[in-house]
Parts: sequence; structure tokens; C-alpha cells
Amino acid sequence: MIGAGGVATVAAFKIVQNADVFTEFMIASRRKAKCDALVDAIHKKGYTMDIKTAQVDADDVEQLKALFSDYKPELVINLALPYQDLTIMDACLACGCNYLDTANYEPKDEAHFEYSWQWAYRERFEQAGLTAILGCGFDPGVTSIFTAYAAKHHFKEIQYLDIVDCNAGDHHKAFATNFNPEINIREITQKGLYWENGQWVETEPLEIHKDLNYPGIGPKDSYLLHHEEIESLVINYPTIKRARFWMTFGQQYLKHLEVIQNIGMSRIDEVEYEAPLADGTGTARVKIVPLQFLKAVLPNPQDLGSNYEGETSIGCRIRGIGNDGKEHTYYVYNNCRHQDAYEETGMQGVSYTTGVPAMIGAMMFCKGLWRKPGVHNVEEFDPDPFMEQLNKQGLPWHEIHDGDLEL
Amino acid sequence: MIGAGGVATVAAFKIVQNADVFTEFMIASRRKAKCDALVDAIHKKGYTMDIKTAQVDADDVEQLKALFSDYKPELVINLALPYQDLTIMDACLACGCNYLDTANYEPKDEAHFEYSWQWAYRERFEQAGLTAILGCGFDPGVTSIFTAYAAKHHFKEIQYLDIVDCNAGDHHKAFATNFNPEINIREITQKGLYWENGQWVETEPLEIHKDLNYPGIGPKDSYLLHHEEIESLVINYPTIKRARFWMTFGQQYLKHLEVIQNIGMSRIDEVEYEAPLADGTGTARVKIVPLQFLKAVLPNPQDLGSNYEGETSIGCRIRGIGNDGKEHTYYVYNNCRHQDAYEETGMQGVSYTTGVPAMIGAMMFCKGLWRKPGVHNVEEFDPDPFMEQLNKQGLPWHEIHDGDLEL
Repeated sequence: MIGAGGVATVAAFKIVQNADVFTEFMIASRRKAKCDALVDAIHKKGYTMDIKTAQVDADDVEQLKALFSDYKPELVINLALPYQDLTIMDACLACGCNYLDTANYEPKDEAHFEYSWQWAYRERFEQAGLTAILGCGFDPGVTSIFTAYAAKHHFKEIQYLDIVDCNAGDHHKAFATNFNPEINIREITQKGLYWENGQWVETEPLEIHKDLNYPGIGPKDSYLLHHEEIESLVINYPTIKRARFWMTFGQQYLKHLEVIQNIGMSRIDEVEYEAPLADGTGTARVKIVPLQFLKAVLPNPQDLGSNYEGETSIGCRIRGIGNDGKEHTYYVYNNCRHQDAYEETGMQGVSYTTGVPAMIGAMMFCKGLWRKPGVHNVEEFDPDPFMEQLNKQGLPWHEIHDGDLEL
Repeated sequence: MIGAGGVATVAAFKIVQNADVFTEFMIASRRKAKCDALVDAIHKKGYTMDIKTAQVDADDVEQLKALFSDYKPELVINLALPYQDLTIMDACLACGCNYLDTANYEPKDEAHFEYSWQWAYRERFEQAGLTAILGCGFDPGVTSIFTAYAAKHHFKEIQYLDIVDCNAGDHHKAFATNFNPEINIREITQKGLYWENGQWVETEPLEIHKDLNYPGIGPKDSYLLHHEEIESLVINYPTIKRARFWMTFGQQYLKHLEVIQNIGMSRIDEVEYEAPLADGTGTARVKIVPLQFLKAVLPNPQDLGSNYEGETSIGCRIRGIGNDGKEHTYYVYNNCRHQDAYEETGMQGVSYTTGVPAMIGAMMFCKGLWRKPGVHNVEEFDPDPFMEQLNKQGLPWHEIHDGDLEL
């Protein structure tokens, strides 16, 4: 596993809880001390698995290759930054490792996401006989598997798909993001995009929004965003007439976001700046990306857990032609309490809902259930064993048949 | 003159417009190129005065002493940063130069202003036979002279003083500060303070506010702030029962300010940060003060002029016992249009209203009207010749006798 942040922490806890499947395990990241601290935290909770740790700069293919050649992992679980997907895939190809990640590649200098860069690796993984599993977090990940499950069991034809992601948690801070603030702000400040009648429709950032009711939570203002899983789902389910992604934001969050943009702190270009050296030996002219510096000043998402109340609710609202030839609706979702996640892993629910599916995806691979040379989105695999594990591993799901989708 | 920012630009234009008084003139700042550009801008407007320029780091007493020993200025006009008042005063004492500034000293690591640091220089300036004129901008500066003028001509006893500062300008940016953003944000985020019945009363930041009507502008929500001129005015006019300072802020401005604080970007402590070197030779660990970095990202106040509409209105609202023994009110104020200021000097009204009084103060000194060994606030000098110049130099004032002060 590459990465030692919030999601990686959850995945690591889940991996040691499934030691019958995961017999050998290494955690590597830019700072080995962070990996060691994670192993300590795991052992303190009473787990005894022997876990190796290593230092690796995931931007550097040669370093990755050296590590993979040495440790010889069967599967590399990439929980590093989305900027690093391609270097890690390159190293996997070079060293004969299978690959799994939770978020699609983004170039660092462009706030923009799409699968094209990673899909371009399809033939190479196929020819190498290696499996690459893309986007195996919650969204993308579980939302795609929910859709695959609906298609397999409940619909002859999925026509309308709305993925709805609500975080009704309260971390008691004026402002904080739930995962890497740099990635979060890049995602939200880009234009909205959805699929309708065979083409993409673009919106201004956060232009379309409406109140949606979330189970056990109530109504929350939900904003149409572009989200990567839509891109593969409309290809894999060509009967889809319209596919959209919605995420809830509070007014306080949006106010902060607006100001962060207005004052220039969401900029991803470099600003030259003269600053004193930390060792006191003078000053240096450095290049600073404002959004990256902001990340250094904002609360660390990994530190949000202890006081985080409320829950998340993420699911798929689907309308289409059922197996009986009639129109049906279907809502499949999971609710996850931040406090439960924190008690189990020391991390809040947003990290938990991403880290658990990453582990389950790795389990599907290790059990031989999800193996298929090439580069695949998760809906291309059998959803049933994955759905079964969700219920066992802490993310139980619920179904509402023929309810009002509100959409 | 030390400094080459917005206020210094205005002062320089005004100095060359009064070449009968100012026969020799040098502009020095940290970057000589900025001084040269200012001289070019002045000459392009048709003024022909020969102006010297020099490089000097105003944090460095030795550099200042070398410059003063070489150029031998009779008066040093300090339009650099408030952090630099004391180093410049030290160099003035060492080299026998008189001194004038527009803003009191503030230590860099504490958002806090008061005159004590500069008043501690009184005896040394007195013994050296040198004059130091403190706070000769608009507020402090003209507001103190307005008060002195009221005391001299209209009141036996000033009892209630409210200084009211309205900027009803629109710079057409989502957020920008009207002067150095670092100094501006430090000023506004500190606690409020006012004088009542012989003691200081502290308020939470921006706690007290009310709508006040400004001439030619209308009602604007005005916030009670601490402002330095109150500190000397209540000493020099001990009959004052209550003295307060009010400044207008729009909801948009305050929203941005709130978020800037919430996200940690108004912090004035150092954050360690690893950044690539601008010359591409690697990375360095540097210390960055978030508020100073924010200044580098926000619009430069000097660039706000071209599109700046509306006007400022700053004045004193006074109530007390008139020379006839009866209670009277008096409101003396100036309104300044941003566009007029821009056409004359290339700077907006906030820089203009500070730079013009700095020049007039220097003129008072050079004409021998304001010379008195020691360290003095401007109300300690004769206000009449200064008031006369305000009308001639672009900041005409108006009076309302026995009107409703609203306060």
C-alpha cells in the first residue's frame, strides 16, 4: 500500500482485520516515520500482524521500481495523491504488479479529471497479464458497484442515474475539508458536468442545486458536480439517458470556498516569494502554489475525527425498466457515522467510506474474484461478492424499491 | 522620503507641485527601481524637478545612517512600513535629521498599536534639537488637526469626540484592501478600544457598530475600532469625556475578513513550509507568515486606482461647551473622490488622503511653522496654516455647526 494518510489508515486497519486474506503487507510513503506511526497505532489496538514499512517518493518511477523489485507485491494499493497514479502504474507494469486505486489521475497544473490518461494503459496491462482496478473508494467505487448490482438484479434497462453524496457531519471547526483540501477545492471549483441524451452538458461551478432528503438525515441542499464515475458508467450502461452526481454543501462551507477563490488562495499556479530559510541562514526566492500553502494552514483532515458528529449518506437513485418490463425506481445507499469510524480506526467517516472499499477491492483481487488483465473500472466486475463484504466490513447498505427519488 | 508605495507616490506628486518649498528631494526604498519608476511617472506628467533616488533597507539602521550621512536631509519623511519607524528614528537621531511619519510603530510579531515606543524618544529628540512629527496622514493626522482647530476656534471644552471614516468607494474587485493588506487586516482584527470617563473600554473586534450618515454618501454601517490618534488626543484635550473612532465596512468586506481569519491566513506567526527554489536548483525549508503571503496574492492597493469609483468621507464629530458657554456640536470633514485622486497621481483616494497631509506636514516643517524639538503628535502644533493648505492642496474641508451628530 502506498500512502499513510486518512484513507490509507482506514484501509490498513481493515487489511489487518482480514489477515486470512492478506498474508503479507507493506506500507510505503514519502515519509517512513508516518508509516511506522500507523503500524504503531494498529498494534496499539491489539492487532498483531507483522507489517513492513518503506520510504518511497511516488512521483519517482525509479524509486517505485526499486521498491517493487525488492518487495515483489502481488498487488499495489495506491492511496497516494491522484497526481501519482501514472508513475505508480508505470512501475507496476515494469515490475509485474497488479494495481488498484481510489481516484483517477489528475495533472498537477490543471484542475480537471477524466479517465483517459489511465484508460490509455489498457493494452499494456492486458499484454502483461496484469489487472488494474480503477476508482475503488466509495464514490467512485461503491457507487459504481451499486449501479452494477442494480443492473444485474433489478433492471433490464437503467435510464436515469443520480449519485447522491451527503455529509451531514459537524466537525466543529469554522472551516475544514474532509479530505486533502487541495484535491477537494480543485474538485469543487471546476465546472459542473452531467450526461444527458448522449452528450455531456456543462454547468457553471455549483450552478445547479436542490434540496434532497437523505435517509435518517433529512433535507440538504445538494449541488450538481462533475464526478469521474459518471464517465465510465455511461459507457458501461449505454441505456442511461441521464446521469448526474450531487453533493451536499452547507452555506458556511460555500462562503469559505467563495472567499478562498476571491482572495486568490485556490490558485494552482506558482507565485514567486522571498522567504527566510527555516535554518536561519538567510532568505530564498521560492515558488509557492497558493492552494498548496493553504493546505499547510488549514486543519489536517486526519485530525478531524475525535470531535466529528453526524453521519454520511451516499447512494444511487436509479429509474429504469425493471425485469418485469415496467418502470421502477431503486435507491441503494449506505449511512456511516463519523463517531463509529473514529472509534474503530481513529479517522472520520469520509476517510472510512473510502478506505474500506479499497480494502474490499484488494480482497476481491486476492481471493481471485476480480482478476481480468487490463485496466478496469469497478462496475466491470461481479458486484455480488463485493456487496456481501460491504455488509460485513462496516458499510452496510439499504434499499428502497419504488420510492420517490425526488430527481 | 523613504517609501515608494501608494502613499509615497501621492506625497511625491504633491512635493514636486510645491517646488517653492521643497528645493531638494530624494526618494529611497528597498528597491531603487521602484523609486526610479515613480520619478519617471512624475516627469511624464510634466513636472521637471530633479529628484534623487536611492536603495535602502529601512529595517537596517546602519544602511539608513549611511544614506542620511551622505545625502544630509533636513527632514526624513517616513512612508515605509510601521515596523520601521524606530530604526528610522534611530538613524535620524544619529545623523541630526528631523522626522515625520503617518502611522505609529507596531512590532511585527504583535498586532497592536500605541505611541509608547515612539514617545520614549522624546528626550533624545529634545536634547538633539530635532523635531519628530508623528502621525501626519489623514487618520491619524488631519483628524487630530481638525480636533485642534475645533478646540482653538469653536470650543472652550471638547467633551465628546467621534472620528468617522467612511470609504464609499467601489474598486470592482471581489476583495481588496485599500492600503497594505497586512497592516489593514492586523488593524481590523484586533479588539476595539475607546475612551470613556477617564478610562479605556475594550470591545470584541467589530463588536459595536451603527449606521451613520456621511455627507453626499448617505448611511453606512460604521464599526468602532481602536485607532491611534485617540491615544494622544485624550491626553492633549483632557476635557474629553468620550472619544471613539468609527470606520465603515461593507458586508462583503467583512465576510472576506471573517473567512481569512477562519482559514488561518491572517496568522502573523511563522509556518514552516517546503517549497521549490525559484531558480530550479532544488527545494528549501522556509518560514512563511500566512498574512504576508496573502499580501503577495491579493490585489496590490496601488493597482486599484484606475477603476475606482465613489469617494471617501473622513471627519470629526464633536460636542462640547462653545466659547459662548453653551453646548454646541461641530462636524468638520473632507470628502475625496477616488477618480480625482487617480487622475492627478495615479493612486486611489485612500492613498491620496494620507499622502497629501504628509506633504503638508513636511511643508509646515520646511516653512518653519511646525518646529519644536521633541517628539510630537500633530495636534500639538498650530492647526491654522495646515488647515489653509488642505484647501489649497486638494483636500478641502467643510463644517456643519450645531447639526445632529447621530452619536
